[in-house]
Amino acid sequence: MSYIRLDNLRKHYSPQIPKVLESLPAVEIATNYAPIEESVSAFFPATFGLPLLELKEPTSSEETQERIPLTVGVLLSGGQAPGGHNVIAGIFDALKSYHPASSLYGFLMGPGGLLKKQVRELTADVINAYRNSGGFDMIGSDRTKLEKKEDFATALKVAHSLGLDALVIIGGDDSNTNAALLAEYCQAVGDPLVVVGCPKTIDGDLKNAWIETSFGFDTCAKVYAELIGNIQRDCYSSKKYWHFIKLMGRSASHLTLECALLTQPNVAIISEEIAAHNRTLNDIVTQLADVIVMRSERGMDFGSVLIPEGLVEFVPRMKALIVELNKVLAENAHKLHLVKRSQILNYLAGKLTEESASFFLSLPKEMAYQLSMERDPHGNVQVSRIETEELIVTMLKKELDKRKAKGEYKGKFSALTHFFGYEGRCSMPSNFDASYCYALGRTATYLAVHHRSGYMASVRNLVNHPSEWQPAGIPLTLMMHLEERKGMLKAVIKKSLVDIEGAPFRYFRKHRHEWAEGIAYHYPGPIQYFGPSAVCDNTTLTLRLENHLEPEDETYDASSLF
Amino acid sequence: MSYIRLDNLRKHYSPQIPKVLESLPAVEIATNYAPIEESVSAFFPATFGLPLLELKEPTSSEETQERIPLTVGVLLSGGQAPGGHNVIAGIFDALKSYHPASSLYGFLMGPGGLLKKQVRELTADVINAYRNSGGFDMIGSDRTKLEKKEDFATALKVAHSLGLDALVIIGGDDSNTNAALLAEYCQAVGDPLVVVGCPKTIDGDLKNAWIETSFGFDTCAKVYAELIGNIQRDCYSSKKYWHFIKLMGRSASHLTLECALLTQPNVAIISEEIAAHNRTLNDIVTQLADVIVMRSERGMDFGSVLIPEGLVEFVPRMKALIVELNKVLAENAHKLHLVKRSQILNYLAGKLTEESASFFLSLPKEMAYQLSMERDPHGNVQVSRIETEELIVTMLKKELDKRKAKGEYKGKFSALTHFFGYEGRCSMPSNFDASYCYALGRTATYLAVHHRSGYMASVRNLVNHPSEWQPAGIPLTLMMHLEERKGMLKAVIKKSLVDIEGAPFRYFRKHRHEWAEGIAYHYPGPIQYFGPSAVCDNTTLTLRLENHLEPEDETYDASSLF
Repeated sequence: MSYIRLDNLRKHYSPQIPKVLESLPAVEIATNYAPIEESVSAFFPATFGLPLLELKEPTSSEETQERIPLTVGVLLSGGQAPGGHNVIAGIFDALKSYHPASSLYGFLMGPGGLLKKQVRELTADVINAYRNSGGFDMIGSDRTKLEKKEDFATALKVAHSLGLDALVIIGGDDSNTNAALLAEYCQAVGDPLVVVGCPKTIDGDLKNAWIETSFGFDTCAKVYAELIGNIQRDCYSSKKYWHFIKLMGRSASHLTLECALLTQPNVAIISEEIAAHNRTLNDIVTQLADVIVMRSERGMDFGSVLIPEGLVEFVPRMKALIVELNKVLAENAHKLHLVKRSQILNYLAGKLTEESASFFLSLPKEMAYQLSMERDPHGNVQVSRIETEELIVTMLKKELDKRKAKGEYKGKFSALTHFFGYEGRCSMPSNFDASYCYALGRTATYLAVHHRSGYMASVRNLVNHPSEWQPAGIPLTLMMHLEERKGMLKAVIKKSLVDIEGAPFRYFRKHRHEWAEGIAYHYPGPIQYFGPSAVCDNTTLTLRLENHLEPEDETYDASSLF
Repeated sequence: MSYIRLDNLRKHYSPQIPKVLESLPAVEIATNYAPIEESVSAFFPATFGLPLLELKEPTSSEETQERIPLTVGVLLSGGQAPGGHNVIAGIFDALKSYHPASSLYGFLMGPGGLLKKQVRELTADVINAYRNSGGFDMIGSDRTKLEKKEDFATALKVAHSLGLDALVIIGGDDSNTNAALLAEYCQAVGDPLVVVGCPKTIDGDLKNAWIETSFGFDTCAKVYAELIGNIQRDCYSSKKYWHFIKLMGRSASHLTLECALLTQPNVAIISEEIAAHNRTLNDIVTQLADVIVMRSERGMDFGSVLIPEGLVEFVPRMKALIVELNKVLAENAHKLHLVKRSQILNYLAGKLTEESASFFLSLPKEMAYQLSMERDPHGNVQVSRIETEELIVTMLKKELDKRKAKGEYKGKFSALTHFFGYEGRCSMPSNFDASYCYALGRTATYLAVHHRSGYMASVRNLVNHPSEWQPAGIPLTLMMHLEERKGMLKAVIKKSLVDIEGAPFRYFRKHRHEWAEGIAYHYPGPIQYFGPSAVCDNTTLTLRLENHLEPEDETYDASSLF
């Protein structure tokens, strides 16, 4: 039999294109949108109040303007998300179809590459080698922040030297906030550079009234769900272990919730619910122990538990500790290397409030060390490195031993832990993300063609067939609110946490007792690219539920699908 | 858009069937096979020397015998492997097509269920619910050993009470050795029960001149390779981390080698090579450090390393320690709970030889504890619980610090570890495993129809199209040799380790330097069920190389594939 690698073949997939984006669309001003946050206007005097734009098929085929070639720059910012390369392919194809003499430059290794003018022209050969592939390796990414006036001036100088008409920044909430600041700067200094953002993050927290989902979320959730399903099947087959599975997703629990909807585990912890009810780690452990005991009484000494990696930051007491630690670590950064490892915990505790210090020292040592580790460039604790799953298992063992001593529990508790993060971020995008990203890229180009700066490319109506998807331009400032950052009030794009009154969480809440009590596991299997559309092209259950669609199979005749 | 779950749809897949197995084949005695191990005969006086059988399309359509319904029992033994349910489906379908009044019983939770007569009739409804699914949850599995005469007598009594004509034991090398013992017992006591084995294990070590591969190996390797590929893409995109990935596969490194062929990591450690060259852990760490320094000098402070979970048992010094520990733990099993955890390491060291004791106490504490943990029912250390990857990273950090101090290394070493095992064992089988298992099941039934006891079902010619696969019956004793087990010489089915002179390893050896020096990563992506056959239906690169086929894409016109 002949042998072909999927990663080679996949380059030839043609993303599905919204009808509106097949050729140059017209831009219409939408009149009907949610109230704006006036307080943001002070931070964006030049760009605040831009209208929301809808891209539409042009009513007449005659163009009023002569087409001239465009030069566009693009960069990737922050953590990888499946589909990044397709955004770039979408930008490229739309540019070339607008005018074949247009050109595209990619800045290498993120915003840092923009400031250092490390750049590569993205020709058809380059683009074709990366179509529908995962990762950000075409041009790389980093976490350099564009925040300061000097940075904007440098960026603009680089843009001019390359003759850029537009710059597309592909990133999460912070990177898009920075895109807004750069757009504001350009407007303020009267520079015509168009700055457009694209909503990227596997965490799914760049989402609001105008952005249905960020790209990469769909693929990542599907990869993790494949693995969770496989583990659950193993768990149910051998009936020996409790599996504790920590999932990436820095703050919000969207990924954990989506994975729970896809796999129906025995327990899924949702950080936002923990915070809403002011729960402690002990509360979480008590509830888990209740489920373990209940299942044990039914003859099931096995199960699955999903844990969002950001959990510790949502437990109020832990959150307070982390905030204090962030400060102590920042203030003492220059001295820390002088402290012996054996003394570091006591050294830090000595600088905390009494309550936090005693809590800090009561934690398992390994956990306390992890909380004291190096911060990321934003000064945040690296939650993926904190072994929350191990902490919970350790605490659970103690709790179950206690119950056993009291005769309340007779089962056997054997736990295995897993952490899925790097396994998904660079997966080949699902058909959904491949097409969604490609459409975002085309939208970004068309916003640039129409000289619309300070916008985020948006594609909506995503639970319908891609041909019906609706592209739009959302003013970056429209998605902002004020937040305190390092003691300063700033206008930033709002992170969207799981809404515990929203349809996805309500569905989860309605069903979780039945999932806890028995075996309701789903086994989603690997992402499929070639099969029936109802299997291969769908997006997340979160989006389905938000659009009043059930996350259940419809009746169908299997034979008709092949 | 409508929404259909893959795990539901997949039940409707029809495995591809070898032509020979489409209806009742004839059995022919093959004359040409490798020399037999005469020393085994003493252990199997009644069944040794059975002929090797080939299943062939019957030359005439007239059957000499009247068909009467058969009653067959089946059980799953040992760890899960993708495709187990399809073996059972194959048995069932062949039984029913042979005679519609035939019936199939499944013993629950493995050989233990046979002895306890925990059994369930497997009707069409049950079978249909599990077709092409992963896991063993249809009837479960365990690790009970069938070794003693009393057990055989009990098994036979249960078989009689159900009116069984045949029993199919689906398991690895040990389980199939036990199948051979049961077949021998039946023959010796003059019982007509037919006992047939099926080659199951993700480890790929049940493989020899007659068995090309065990089922589940293909799927598992593909799941792990998907994840390794994703991690490598992440690694290459962010250029920050060295990823150390431990892979399941109890003893042999077949899974690690296959994953290396599929993903082309910077380093893959193959236990069999370590043992062949008598290498120490320090040697391994030195070689890894050499690669890390070399890549760092080329500007690449990132990379990927694959580690087989059984590695520690192949490092001669460690192997000696483990053998001693196994003995000490077994001999002192009744006293161990009296020893405090803080004293257990010294307690055990006191009972080891001087050399092992000092090595044991020189290990990182966590590792020493892991080596002292509970043994599996075979008295073996649970290698999957030993954090070899952590040990190697710890040792590497020290080595790199030394080199840094000497000015030989200027890079930044940041390591992340992963372990993949439970993520793959219960995956939905690949098309290859789905069809291979189904063919094995049909073969098992036809061996039973022909009253051939003491055989393993075999299907060969696997790199060709399934229609051309060649079913056979291999005498279980033909695959045996003598081994010392717990101080006694026993005849057992030989485990197949990676042959470092075989084609797969030679291909790896030829290319690994270029993989270490640069970026040669492959990103295989998720298992596909619906696409072009050259993508979806192929088996392992190991098998391709063993059959003189290259593991490279052939030239093709992508458009012709869709």
